[in-house]
Amino acid sequence: MIEPFGNQYIVARPVYSKKGFEEEHEKKYRYHKTFLDNLRECCSCSSRKAKKIALSFLPIASWLPAYQIKKWLLSDIVSGISTGLVAVLQGLAFALLVTVPAGYGLYAAFFPCIIYFFFGTSRHISVGPFPVLSMMVGAVVTRLVPDPSVNATESSGTSVSTNATLLDQERVMVAASVTVLSGIIQLLLGVLRIGFVVIYLSDSLISGFTTAAAIHVLVSQLKFMLQLTVPAHTDPFSIFKVLVSIFSQIRDTNIADLVTSLIILVIVFVVKEVNQRFKAKLPVPIPIELFVTVIATGVSYGCDFKNRFGVAVVGKMQSGFQPPLTPSVDIFQKTIGDSFAIAIVGFAVAFSVASVYSLKYDYPIDGNQELIAFGLGNICGGAFRGFASSTALSRSGVQESTGGKTQIAGLLSAIIVLIVIVAIGFLLEPLQKSVLAALALGNLKGMLMQFAEIGRLWKKDKYDCLIWVVTFLCAIVLGLGLGLAASVAFQLLTIVFRTQFPKCSTLANVGRSNIYKNRKDFSDMYEPEGVKIFRCPSPLYFANIGFFKQKLISAIGFNPLRILRKRNKALKKIRRLLKKKQIQVTPKGLIYTADAIKDSDDELDNNQIEELDQPVNTKDLPFQIDWNSDLPPFLMVPKVHIHSLILDFSAVSFLDVSSVRSLKTILQEFVRIQVDVYIVGIDDELVEQLARCQFFDAEVKDSIFFLTIHDAVLHCLMKKDYNISKFNPTQEKEMAYDFTINTNGGLRNRECQVPVETRF
Amino acid sequence: MIEPFGNQYIVARPVYSKKGFEEEHEKKYRYHKTFLDNLRECCSCSSRKAKKIALSFLPIASWLPAYQIKKWLLSDIVSGISTGLVAVLQGLAFALLVTVPAGYGLYAAFFPCIIYFFFGTSRHISVGPFPVLSMMVGAVVTRLVPDPSVNATESSGTSVSTNATLLDQERVMVAASVTVLSGIIQLLLGVLRIGFVVIYLSDSLISGFTTAAAIHVLVSQLKFMLQLTVPAHTDPFSIFKVLVSIFSQIRDTNIADLVTSLIILVIVFVVKEVNQRFKAKLPVPIPIELFVTVIATGVSYGCDFKNRFGVAVVGKMQSGFQPPLTPSVDIFQKTIGDSFAIAIVGFAVAFSVASVYSLKYDYPIDGNQELIAFGLGNICGGAFRGFASSTALSRSGVQESTGGKTQIAGLLSAIIVLIVIVAIGFLLEPLQKSVLAALALGNLKGMLMQFAEIGRLWKKDKYDCLIWVVTFLCAIVLGLGLGLAASVAFQLLTIVFRTQFPKCSTLANVGRSNIYKNRKDFSDMYEPEGVKIFRCPSPLYFANIGFFKQKLISAIGFNPLRILRKRNKALKKIRRLLKKKQIQVTPKGLIYTADAIKDSDDELDNNQIEELDQPVNTKDLPFQIDWNSDLPPFLMVPKVHIHSLILDFSAVSFLDVSSVRSLKTILQEFVRIQVDVYIVGIDDELVEQLARCQFFDAEVKDSIFFLTIHDAVLHCLMKKDYNISKFNPTQEKEMAYDFTINTNGGLRNRECQVPVETRF
Repeated sequence: MIEPFGNQYIVARPVYSKKGFEEEHEKKYRYHKTFLDNLRECCSCSSRKAKKIALSFLPIASWLPAYQIKKWLLSDIVSGISTGLVAVLQGLAFALLVTVPAGYGLYAAFFPCIIYFFFGTSRHISVGPFPVLSMMVGAVVTRLVPDPSVNATESSGTSVSTNATLLDQERVMVAASVTVLSGIIQLLLGVLRIGFVVIYLSDSLISGFTTAAAIHVLVSQLKFMLQLTVPAHTDPFSIFKVLVSIFSQIRDTNIADLVTSLIILVIVFVVKEVNQRFKAKLPVPIPIELFVTVIATGVSYGCDFKNRFGVAVVGKMQSGFQPPLTPSVDIFQKTIGDSFAIAIVGFAVAFSVASVYSLKYDYPIDGNQELIAFGLGNICGGAFRGFASSTALSRSGVQESTGGKTQIAGLLSAIIVLIVIVAIGFLLEPLQKSVLAALALGNLKGMLMQFAEIGRLWKKDKYDCLIWVVTFLCAIVLGLGLGLAASVAFQLLTIVFRTQFPKCSTLANVGRSNIYKNRKDFSDMYEPEGVKIFRCPSPLYFANIGFFKQKLISAIGFNPLRILRKRNKALKKIRRLLKKKQIQVTPKGLIYTADAIKDSDDELDNNQIEELDQPVNTKDLPFQIDWNSDLPPFLMVPKVHIHSLILDFSAVSFLDVSSVRSLKTILQEFVRIQVDVYIVGIDDELVEQLARCQFFDAEVKDSIFFLTIHDAVLHCLMKKDYNISKFNPTQEKEMAYDFTINTNGGLRNRECQVPVETRF
Repeated sequence: MIEPFGNQYIVARPVYSKKGFEEEHEKKYRYHKTFLDNLRECCSCSSRKAKKIALSFLPIASWLPAYQIKKWLLSDIVSGISTGLVAVLQGLAFALLVTVPAGYGLYAAFFPCIIYFFFGTSRHISVGPFPVLSMMVGAVVTRLVPDPSVNATESSGTSVSTNATLLDQERVMVAASVTVLSGIIQLLLGVLRIGFVVIYLSDSLISGFTTAAAIHVLVSQLKFMLQLTVPAHTDPFSIFKVLVSIFSQIRDTNIADLVTSLIILVIVFVVKEVNQRFKAKLPVPIPIELFVTVIATGVSYGCDFKNRFGVAVVGKMQSGFQPPLTPSVDIFQKTIGDSFAIAIVGFAVAFSVASVYSLKYDYPIDGNQELIAFGLGNICGGAFRGFASSTALSRSGVQESTGGKTQIAGLLSAIIVLIVIVAIGFLLEPLQKSVLAALALGNLKGMLMQFAEIGRLWKKDKYDCLIWVVTFLCAIVLGLGLGLAASVAFQLLTIVFRTQFPKCSTLANVGRSNIYKNRKDFSDMYEPEGVKIFRCPSPLYFANIGFFKQKLISAIGFNPLRILRKRNKALKKIRRLLKKKQIQVTPKGLIYTADAIKDSDDELDNNQIEELDQPVNTKDLPFQIDWNSDLPPFLMVPKVHIHSLILDFSAVSFLDVSSVRSLKTILQEFVRIQVDVYIVGIDDELVEQLARCQFFDAEVKDSIFFLTIHDAVLHCLMKKDYNISKFNPTQEKEMAYDFTINTNGGLRNRECQVPVETRF
């Protein structure tokens, strides 16, 4: 029992090396699952497991039977109708982003919603078009089916209109194929249970990416607001081309469209602000999109804007559904990268919105099942000429805030969309496209406000700020698909950056107890003599082991390899001089002649150089050399002021093969110049890994591990004490002469003051 | 002074929280350099700095004046001649890899060597063609200038030969342009001082990559050995096409070429083995390449192999140099990616070889200056129709082992190459191409032997093994350039993998002292009651914070948010029942009626759900609730068995914004259910970062940090003691009734045994 004793930390126990500790406290054997075990477990099958998997594949089978009709149905109906109206308008508006006729947006709002009703696990999200995703599909569409009218604005009206129909069909085809392909990718990811990939999209990345997407949406909608013909913008750098094109044509702006859209923008912004500010007081947010659409359609129809001002209107909407199409494999091949990006972004957005609600209402969602639901939704939606769907934040907000309890609300909203598709779509025909553009822009405020993140992130964490900025710039300049890939790669690189230049530090004791802190941080520090404590605050691996070594050497103040070589050179010289009798060993010490001093270093050939890296071997000499004493001038060996080096590895969370190899070399070099190295605070698993990597041998022993810095320091001090007490009593071998050179003396013998420990 | 006291670890000091410690021990103010400071320092200029930079740009200015003619010149001459002969043969052989006429390999062996003499910092590497690099250039060449003869093998001899000359010229042009571009890239990297990028190439990656390169070399040389016409192989997957093509034509093999090359291969292998085994005894490795070349050339000339067996020979070699060419900007655009890969691989190989020697002979090399030297060398070499150069391990081995001391040897080897170029090149004209192919293959043994690495790495570290295999497969399947990029990306991803699923553990005290270990590892563990110690052994960031939370919750055994909501719901109910007078507060406790039990949960709307996440507010109640006592059945609140949670963050080396935000949420949830959270062992810098991220508020205080686990545990125990002693003396407020429900009792009042602490 540990009894607190006032506010005192009192410990008395043996000094523990890892070995000593494990001798005293028996370590339990634990079976660690191997790769094979995990595989077996994963592939094992039982009827219960099969049933569970089958049920998890069709979530509706679990929640629908438990549906509480009395309690939930009414609010689901209210919510479904509201959401459905928003879905219709957003479908139309976002179809413009895809550059397909507005009517196709309704298909995108219908099919995935139905599918999600059966397969989805979230109860609150509203599935359907999402501006960023529509934009991404639009980018692919305009790349594969560029707008010929840009180069042919002068051609006759009829041919353009015929071409336009053909063009629209091609575009729908591309959008549908991309959607199907991204659906297939989502389905595959879901079936293979790798939905976890979304964790690689950090908050900063998503924030930067959606801000860039908002800018893209803004730029692409300018075209509709001003009613200009601008080239498609999709490739890297094309956003600038679009802007140049818009500004060069700015005089051709259709004033009626511009005015309409500006008025609507202002209204939408103001009402959304009101909604936001009086959130608590309003029972339901004002459905401003619905109002402005109804009014704008009425006005446009009543005043015949189309013919009077030449505005672009939604135009003829096909009533009912069109037969499904076979997606083109040719398009698949050309758009695999984009489809992957669409699949990931669509899922990531939906999943993050869904997890907000799942957290709020405390029910589980299943990422992989969500992937399957969206995948099936997109495959089906694409086959029926829709485009990629996910969830729009604003629409899900409507569904939840109007009281939606389950996906029954989603189903009802799909039915509203269905009614518009089959029955009352024609009512929307006089609606101006610029109104839809303005509505799409009205949803961007929140995303554009994210620019403020830059400043906040800069204060919090430079790397996160960098991720935001790089993601934003990549997504703006390279386009959304390629930009996303580049920014994910960059983001993962920051993890490397963060650990690449670890802030290594030299520790010292504070307050004479068992606390060790950075030497520079406190004033009352105490460094045990001859002991250096070095802390590495990050994992060690190929990219930072070199840096670690460099920092270690600069903290120690010398390069162990160089010392080792100098010692070996000195030893070589002593041997040669002994042979030449220019050094003699006497009981009082060494005597050397003046010739010894003059003896020049001879060149070493390559094999000999390798010898210099071997451990210092003095066994054949009749005495031992104390390298730290004052040596005669012909032996140029720098002194080593430490006898122990303690490496604090408590923050080293992993090692790789490169770092283990380098670490071993470093340790060997220190051991060879008689500096004891201790490693403290290292994880037991890493010790096992070191053993697997043949880290230990006769020089680097597995007894170098200590539990804490203090244990190792105490051990060092004890060992030193022991060494002193072992040699002091005899005294006869301790020689410390005064060391002066008689510069006048010609060739006469001098007595050498090399303090050696003779081995007679 | 810390005195070791036998083998005892004895400590007596106050329990330290981070705050308490810093109050007692004054922390020194340290000025941390800001980004601007570093920039200023970097851009500052002084005449000394300028001189140093100028000198570092031309290393020859430092080492040549110090050249020791007497000592070094002779060995440099011997080494230079040997290296030069090897360089000639390797130049010819590697030119085949580039698919240009063999003679151009000599230019590649000459110019970079001369440039390196002036600008290089390594004294021992032999600059010139390198098989992997030649292969990479060759891949680009065959992609841009595919071999038409594959499809036109039937056409007449003369037209093919004319075409062949034209083709060769185009190929030389491509090779030269790629070389110049990669030289420019190297120069830029060097001038911008970003030579450090090579640290991203770990040992495992380089090993896997060079093995794949060896396979590519092998496959590409089969063509020459068998004398077959196969299509270029460069694109992803094309290696398989080449193999298919070779096997489909295998019957057209030129037997003379096959036999020659096999014989030479065997000889080279055997002699290299001998060289290796008797390394110590041989003064100089046997220059077997030289011997076989001379003999093979003689035999081929003497027996007129060319006409008799139709073998392919080196053929007419242009004597002397050709005028420099202007590289094509068009080719630059098409090959930017490949050039980048060539630049990086070339530099990485040369630098790693150079650092081996710099370590061995103990002189400094400068990565950025090396980049500049290779960059200039490639620009110059490319302009004179050579191809990309680096260093071949074997040739550098020759230069060093024959006694080369400085780049004077390199200069001399260049002169040998020069002699061959201008004077005796014609002697090599009868040499069979298959001989050169066999010589190139002879150098591959070492690289191919690296397959054994897989097994070794698997034992040492699974991730490193994975890096090797993925790199190898990528480089084989995707080709060398793209494969390198993919494998570097994968390798960086492994750093994320390694930290993504941290092995979090619950710690407990071992041996009743200050040691805390994984609860599962030892048998004599002691867990302080109500205290949970949780350790996270890796940095926390966006990709693993979710996993961390999940592990924490499963270690704790409950989800704090759920508990919080249940408590708030219970509180709501108590308030309602109090209002309805179904609960009454008496000095003895609460009395509740049977109606209270029946009182059903009412549905909560969305705003109310948000309220549930707020801190439990019992201020308006006339009593306090002890949530861990046995509550009446109508209050369904799970008990919380811990009062303190200690998070061991000593191995958390960094945090990012996402993880800080999530961590704050987690801590808040615990604090709101009255579980005290303590963080121990965290780096001071991370605490500063937390402060910058607005981590602290009224709930999560900055007093949660303790120095060690033991400090925190003692603090928890002390606090608990204090709480008990504070409340125990009065006793009157402690209520612990027995809790039985009279199931027979109809509607009569029951006495509630809710142990509350009344606040009258």
